[in-house]
Amino acid sequence: MYKYEYLLQFTKNVFQKMGCSDHDAEIIADVFLAAELRGHSSHGMIRIKDYYQLWKAKRINVNPDIRIVHESPSTAVIDGDNAVGMVAARKSMEIAIEKAKTAGTGWVATRNSNHFGIAGYYAMMALKHDMIGICLTNANPLVAPTFSIERMMGTNPIAVAIPAGTNPPFVADFATTPIARGKLAIAEKKGEKVALGFVQDKFGNPSDDPAILKDGGSMLTLGGDRLHGSHKGFCLTSIVDIFSAVFSGANFGPFVPPSVAYLPVLDKKTGEGTGHFFGAMRIDAFQPANDFKGKMDEWIETFRSARPAEGQDHVVIPGDPEREAEKILIKNGIDIIPSIWKDLLEIANELQIQFS
Amino acid sequence: MYKYEYLLQFTKNVFQKMGCSDHDAEIIADVFLAAELRGHSSHGMIRIKDYYQLWKAKRINVNPDIRIVHESPSTAVIDGDNAVGMVAARKSMEIAIEKAKTAGTGWVATRNSNHFGIAGYYAMMALKHDMIGICLTNANPLVAPTFSIERMMGTNPIAVAIPAGTNPPFVADFATTPIARGKLAIAEKKGEKVALGFVQDKFGNPSDDPAILKDGGSMLTLGGDRLHGSHKGFCLTSIVDIFSAVFSGANFGPFVPPSVAYLPVLDKKTGEGTGHFFGAMRIDAFQPANDFKGKMDEWIETFRSARPAEGQDHVVIPGDPEREAEKILIKNGIDIIPSIWKDLLEIANELQIQFS
Repeated sequence: MYKYEYLLQFTKNVFQKMGCSDHDAEIIADVFLAAELRGHSSHGMIRIKDYYQLWKAKRINVNPDIRIVHESPSTAVIDGDNAVGMVAARKSMEIAIEKAKTAGTGWVATRNSNHFGIAGYYAMMALKHDMIGICLTNANPLVAPTFSIERMMGTNPIAVAIPAGTNPPFVADFATTPIARGKLAIAEKKGEKVALGFVQDKFGNPSDDPAILKDGGSMLTLGGDRLHGSHKGFCLTSIVDIFSAVFSGANFGPFVPPSVAYLPVLDKKTGEGTGHFFGAMRIDAFQPANDFKGKMDEWIETFRSARPAEGQDHVVIPGDPEREAEKILIKNGIDIIPSIWKDLLEIANELQIQFS
Repeated sequence: MYKYEYLLQFTKNVFQKMGCSDHDAEIIADVFLAAELRGHSSHGMIRIKDYYQLWKAKRINVNPDIRIVHESPSTAVIDGDNAVGMVAARKSMEIAIEKAKTAGTGWVATRNSNHFGIAGYYAMMALKHDMIGICLTNANPLVAPTFSIERMMGTNPIAVAIPAGTNPPFVADFATTPIARGKLAIAEKKGEKVALGFVQDKFGNPSDDPAILKDGGSMLTLGGDRLHGSHKGFCLTSIVDIFSAVFSGANFGPFVPPSVAYLPVLDKKTGEGTGHFFGAMRIDAFQPANDFKGKMDEWIETFRSARPAEGQDHVVIPGDPEREAEKILIKNGIDIIPSIWKDLLEIANELQIQFS
């Protein structure tokens, strides 16, 4: 078990050694560790190796000039200059928040970026400003649209953070597929099968084998099949892709640069890098802040006390499970499984950093 | 079969007789008929009776003073003054579009409104201004959150309309449940069972009986069960409810005034009437308009030509089915089933309007 602070410092050291500024390394480490603490280890320490390999291949810019290339009073388009995704994303959300201070809302589309960790991190940046935060991103093409067997889209998450008063905030952060890709990868590593409704084989047959993605299989959209609303999941995944990539000028759908080895790197580009979309809305652009927060408390308490189904305790408010994980992991420490530990040790040795 | 123009004029006459201005009656008829033409007859002529009954019960305001009660450069909150939903919604979206002209984007939350027909209608209003349109609304509480058996939320739809160039626009308009309530009602009227995954009985057991909603049953969120992502559907339905009601000061969740007879009218209120949320985003607030539209053409053509699954023609782009329906119905006419025809005739007789 590792202490949070130890992993935070280690991660910061890794990115400093790769040439990132102190400021940027701190942001990157903060996002990686936020993923771990919130129980989404699929977006935590396991991903450091991806960035390390990109850096070794000179495919990432550790000294980026992230800049606004287009704007209106409430919007901006950002060129991430091929930065580490966390750095481009954090800057973009800061700009959305600044825009919201004067315009009421701020909306930023970012191109030429990379994988940015958990979307919820950026949405939650809005909370301390008494704003609603929104964050979308496209990702590795692994998901097939309804009626198709081709991998055209990522698991394109949606994160929305909404302040409350005496209750903790409402924080939704979810992939627009029934299951996240990271969870399939974990099942595959353990040699386990998964439930039907998550993946199909390359012919479009239902499959319970998470390894099918390495044999031309694809993930399904939220809803699973047409009868149960997969076309609505396709709408959602599409909207996230268009907001992230068409608004910003990033690569869309199947042209998003892959971060998994079993997807080919395509020659064709439809834009620059990966795309994200950020929103910040001042709550007092709609209601006096205290009225709004009081009403959110009432909303949260009403839903939390909805009559539970047999065998269930209560309705889970979005954000609850992550806060519970955080409490436990800060206290008990964070577990690093042996295969990830080995990767981190190798990186530490190559960069001549202490890790044990 | 009725000609579109005949039903449009008839609907306009009904609302004029109820005391609506010519201007308002025209808007209302336009939305009702847009639902019919787009193949969503569940939101078309069948609903005229609901409004007629509300009017007879003096529960709707046909001469509303719809006004802005709070605003910022990019936002506004509208009090719908208990108007026919279409009138409040159309005015709200017009204000969102006006805001976007100067601020780049415009966001309007509307309270004290009523059922407004199809959400897609208002989202599509943005298209001719070279804007993206967004529309959300809450609705009758019939949907249970994950882990609950209580009816807490509506089928809360999301509509997003995005302009393209040579292709027709991308228009997504979907309930955040696997199936729309109207489709369950139709199955029930025909005495048919439905697939599992749409509804549960009052104890939370899976059910294939659409009539279960009249016996304490509830609808499920998109995803169906927890394993297949119903908690993500719950996030979506919640976000729509909060944006529509907490932002605006309307009733949220279980307190939305019911428009079906088998739901009780509650004494408790958490705001005024039904709530909606509208967004308009100028595409040139992000990209030069022609670049954006060209990229959307490329997006649409890429997805439409994704490799189809066996037995399927091609991927359906959101908005395609509705445009196809419209072409056919404009040409062949609109069918009114006998039970609805009888209702309309009765209304026509009471209001002394011609209908045959």
